[in-house]
Amino acid sequence: MKLLRYGSPGNKMPGLLDDTGTIRSLANEIEDLAGEALHPDSLARLTKLDTSKLPAVEGQRLGPCITGTGKIVCIGLNYKDHAAESGSVVPPEPTIFMKATSAISGPNDDVVIPRGSEKTDYEVELAFVIGQHAKYVTEADALDYVAGYCVMNDLSERAFQKEHSGQWVKGKSCDTFAPLGPWLVTKDEIPDPQNLSLWLEVDGQRRQDSSTKHMMFPVAFIVSYLSRFMSLHPGDIISTGTPPGVGMGMDPPGYLQPGQIVRLGVEGLGEQEHQVVAE
Amino acid sequence: MKLLRYGSPGNKMPGLLDDTGTIRSLANEIEDLAGEALHPDSLARLTKLDTSKLPAVEGQRLGPCITGTGKIVCIGLNYKDHAAESGSVVPPEPTIFMKATSAISGPNDDVVIPRGSEKTDYEVELAFVIGQHAKYVTEADALDYVAGYCVMNDLSERAFQKEHSGQWVKGKSCDTFAPLGPWLVTKDEIPDPQNLSLWLEVDGQRRQDSSTKHMMFPVAFIVSYLSRFMSLHPGDIISTGTPPGVGMGMDPPGYLQPGQIVRLGVEGLGEQEHQVVAE
Repeated sequence: MKLLRYGSPGNKMPGLLDDTGTIRSLANEIEDLAGEALHPDSLARLTKLDTSKLPAVEGQRLGPCITGTGKIVCIGLNYKDHAAESGSVVPPEPTIFMKATSAISGPNDDVVIPRGSEKTDYEVELAFVIGQHAKYVTEADALDYVAGYCVMNDLSERAFQKEHSGQWVKGKSCDTFAPLGPWLVTKDEIPDPQNLSLWLEVDGQRRQDSSTKHMMFPVAFIVSYLSRFMSLHPGDIISTGTPPGVGMGMDPPGYLQPGQIVRLGVEGLGEQEHQVVAE
Repeated sequence: MKLLRYGSPGNKMPGLLDDTGTIRSLANEIEDLAGEALHPDSLARLTKLDTSKLPAVEGQRLGPCITGTGKIVCIGLNYKDHAAESGSVVPPEPTIFMKATSAISGPNDDVVIPRGSEKTDYEVELAFVIGQHAKYVTEADALDYVAGYCVMNDLSERAFQKEHSGQWVKGKSCDTFAPLGPWLVTKDEIPDPQNLSLWLEVDGQRRQDSSTKHMMFPVAFIVSYLSRFMSLHPGDIISTGTPPGVGMGMDPPGYLQPGQIVRLGVEGLGEQEHQVVAE
């Protein structure tokens, strides 16, 4: 299933994309795509619905594909060649950081360059969403706790991240810095999350072009690893790091400018398109 | 007002502590201490209630004093002498990091030492809670966005934080690592947040004993500073850093052990008491 949320900000409804590409409402089936609705039992129930009988929806903005997110955990430097372009060494264990949940936006919403920013950058990533409480889970069992996968653009302000002392969170948490979606693709449709192509373009110029097979720490390992340090809850988002090609790594750097169009996608998970605007 | 939440996990109710020390229910007044209920207009309305007419409540566990928290932002190294004991230099700008919201627990709940931990540590802190959306606010206006203040113990696993590569979040986010409360004390009762004594004891031994007057970056500055990098929303928690005396800074180190009792408090904001237990 391709689960999604549509409608205006503050008034979003749950839905799905059917096999014909039509959005169908799930508003009579679940309250929202959050919490218990993401549990395997709930997803199994939704899978059995006759989608042709669900109300069709047209002309609606897509919101972030889930809600009720308690935390966004991101993996840094998870592609060896991106670590090199960032001037960083490959970490012996996953580097993790958090991004404020207030940064979440819809997959095609504008990306807003914050005041004072000169180094707003993009990062196409494979993200996944937790479906049930995970704590001290083994790598073998880890995928049982994943509801599905989606595209995330882990936008980053490099000066805020690296030139204002301390940790990375300042450069990762600006509003609109976590476009999520277009849909949450349930696990059954993605048999191997470690073999998906992913790419990003700025004004039609391909900047990132890689595959999740180059990730150093795969999804199952990440779930197990994180669950040693904290409980993961339904709706938590984990983003798995970005491949090479970010603006910071270009010569001269290719940071985002107002008016540019960013397109990105992950194989099987759909595409995002943002217009970049000034605050 | 001293606002609080009482009841069992998953079934907490809003309340307040009246002038006689009796807990009174606010369940007929607000849905919970979250979101819009923390707005200045809502707090002004609650202030006018005749508390003697609210139902008295007895023998209830205290939960975390607010809910609906989108993020916990913590300030690191905000007391000069704590920076020194941590072997860190004083940062030119606030060091900020995040703590998972899943770490939040009640003020007197057990603190659970996670599996594999040998370096679980305590940090008494002045925390504050956002009452309305803050973005690009000036330091002069900053306190308008604060609903009130509370005690937080910013528990930290030092090996997870510092010896597993990368950022601090791994050592800050374990379950029960953010006891919050006992109450949210509204701003009108704390005319000067920069002149509050704060202390922490382990098994009756005083380990931390300082005042918020030693903070390098005061509350108003922190609100304004953070609002440059991200929107702050009602229910967001900001914890302002800890004074010297943490277990890591002792010789030999004084990390927490199962069976110990930790007590801590901030002047005017009440006290917490935790039993330390093994996972």
